[in-house]
Amino acid sequence: MNQTDPLAISMGEPAGIGPDLILQVYARREELDLPPFVVFGNVSLLAARAKQLELDVELCEPLASGVVAEFPSRLPVVDLGDEIANAPGEPSSKTAHIVTEAISSGVSAVLTGACRALVTAPINKAILKRAGFAHPGHTEYLAELCKGGGNPPTPVMMLAHAGLRVVPMTIHVPLSDVPGLVTRGRVIEHVRIVHDDLIKRFGIEAPKIAVTGLNPHAGEEGEIGEEDRTEIAPAVATLKKQGMDVTGPLPADTAFHLPKWKSFDAVVAMYHDQALIPIKTVAFEEAVNITLGLPIVRTSPDHGTAFDLAGTGKANSKSMLAAIRMADRMSAEPA
Amino acid sequence: MNQTDPLAISMGEPAGIGPDLILQVYARREELDLPPFVVFGNVSLLAARAKQLELDVELCEPLASGVVAEFPSRLPVVDLGDEIANAPGEPSSKTAHIVTEAISSGVSAVLTGACRALVTAPINKAILKRAGFAHPGHTEYLAELCKGGGNPPTPVMMLAHAGLRVVPMTIHVPLSDVPGLVTRGRVIEHVRIVHDDLIKRFGIEAPKIAVTGLNPHAGEEGEIGEEDRTEIAPAVATLKKQGMDVTGPLPADTAFHLPKWKSFDAVVAMYHDQALIPIKTVAFEEAVNITLGLPIVRTSPDHGTAFDLAGTGKANSKSMLAAIRMADRMSAEPA
Repeated sequence: MNQTDPLAISMGEPAGIGPDLILQVYARREELDLPPFVVFGNVSLLAARAKQLELDVELCEPLASGVVAEFPSRLPVVDLGDEIANAPGEPSSKTAHIVTEAISSGVSAVLTGACRALVTAPINKAILKRAGFAHPGHTEYLAELCKGGGNPPTPVMMLAHAGLRVVPMTIHVPLSDVPGLVTRGRVIEHVRIVHDDLIKRFGIEAPKIAVTGLNPHAGEEGEIGEEDRTEIAPAVATLKKQGMDVTGPLPADTAFHLPKWKSFDAVVAMYHDQALIPIKTVAFEEAVNITLGLPIVRTSPDHGTAFDLAGTGKANSKSMLAAIRMADRMSAEPA
Repeated sequence: MNQTDPLAISMGEPAGIGPDLILQVYARREELDLPPFVVFGNVSLLAARAKQLELDVELCEPLASGVVAEFPSRLPVVDLGDEIANAPGEPSSKTAHIVTEAISSGVSAVLTGACRALVTAPINKAILKRAGFAHPGHTEYLAELCKGGGNPPTPVMMLAHAGLRVVPMTIHVPLSDVPGLVTRGRVIEHVRIVHDDLIKRFGIEAPKIAVTGLNPHAGEEGEIGEEDRTEIAPAVATLKKQGMDVTGPLPADTAFHLPKWKSFDAVVAMYHDQALIPIKTVAFEEAVNITLGLPIVRTSPDHGTAFDLAGTGKANSKSMLAAIRMADRMSAEPA
């Protein structure tokens, strides 16, 4: 891996703001001092969207070793599929194969070393599902693509912004399923992955990690629910015994007060809203979604396809830009 | 009710920071332009704590109509119980009766019109429980004290700071019990109480209220859990039909982004952490806890007894001060 290797960006849902964001940031590449990247997507769509947005962006198909050289003057795009219509806000299951191929080709490019890291633009799960896509989301699909000959790795979602990092241990499951998923084994597995990736991907030598409780006030010694003392506390004890700097279970309502949150390299929360409420409250448009636990670096903007904004030029590219910068830093050669 | 009537403050746990906070803010009454208040507590303890904190505070027992007149020079205290030891950080079940009597006397003072509103200093539930106190907390005890001849009213907890207001619909219950408590009836009851009190106590003519979803992304139309569409959405529809301006279920992770949160007069969240994480993330030391749904106005600081800080002079009185100001505003005569 070489810092001059390009990043890979998957185009995301053609009817969403993914293409807009890629084109908007590319158009400002000099001012923003962007690292070179190659887009996995569709040339006809990107060209039409650029025209619609009145962005003066020239596209090219990448030569074997030409991405970094071309990037200053033309945006390299790996063209997947035939011509598709530029129809912002009108998603179609006909383009689903392009969306998934963009992701799988991007993953291959990173696994083979052609690219340093993958940034994914937003997809629409409902459309993909209609076309037969069987994965609950990006994250699980990426794990499947990275499994090589073995079992898929456990992908772990991290949301990050300005030194604040939070990891939901469970993600897109009904709240009623969460308590049953809070087990010693799962807490240990997640904290270990976070710990190892904080070292490997973030260069933090001895990560300080906090784990939240599941119940109000972390259960008040069993007064308000049992899982905090029967599952989370023993998991934290095991992790400490293994030499990790892990604290918890912390009452979740006070764990994210900024000075406290900043005192940890990451907080592992027990479920979706417990993790996403604090990061979206403080960093709505700039948080980055990072997948840990994979053999590749993958980041993405922390928002959806925003169909109503696609093609309007009003999509906010802050989170995409933050995702590109994060992927760049996480995959940089150590100095 | 007259704006020159005093507020009532219950002293809270004698070994905690309640007495400190009351004395600290009283000592600065002129600078802070405090509304007159009378303390329900214990004179010997408050005198000893004032001495320990080196605060020049003179105490007096209130004459029938003298609180407002005395307040500028001496702190009026309704003395409950005998002399008790000043033992910061060392709670004893022996003083439990004083703690509960301070609350019940304070409630009576407001119900009878002698005081305008009640501010409660923090109590320690574990100590009170050991002494036979059967209520899960302040809030439920207050409802019991306010029941008059009938059933206790449904108390509703609100956390507020600088125009941000949030209401947890369920409070100190295990997370695994929450989904079963998210029913149409309970959503309707809570939103109605919030709506009525926003008009009555906050002077907001046509309150705008948001309701969060229970599941991630408010359930994605049943993809991630059922309660959002089977319970919350129909409750919101019913409330709208009744003429209230209610929105939801909103995905909880984006509901508390500040511009969105501020666009509502209150957000009703489904459970403890969903409500308390955002308010404590943005307003850790200054949020006020308000009980709605009662015949009296009651506020309190949004923190606990902080045994380690009692008697040290290091307790932060911001939240207590905010609770006093909130009680003052909420019980002021309309201009």
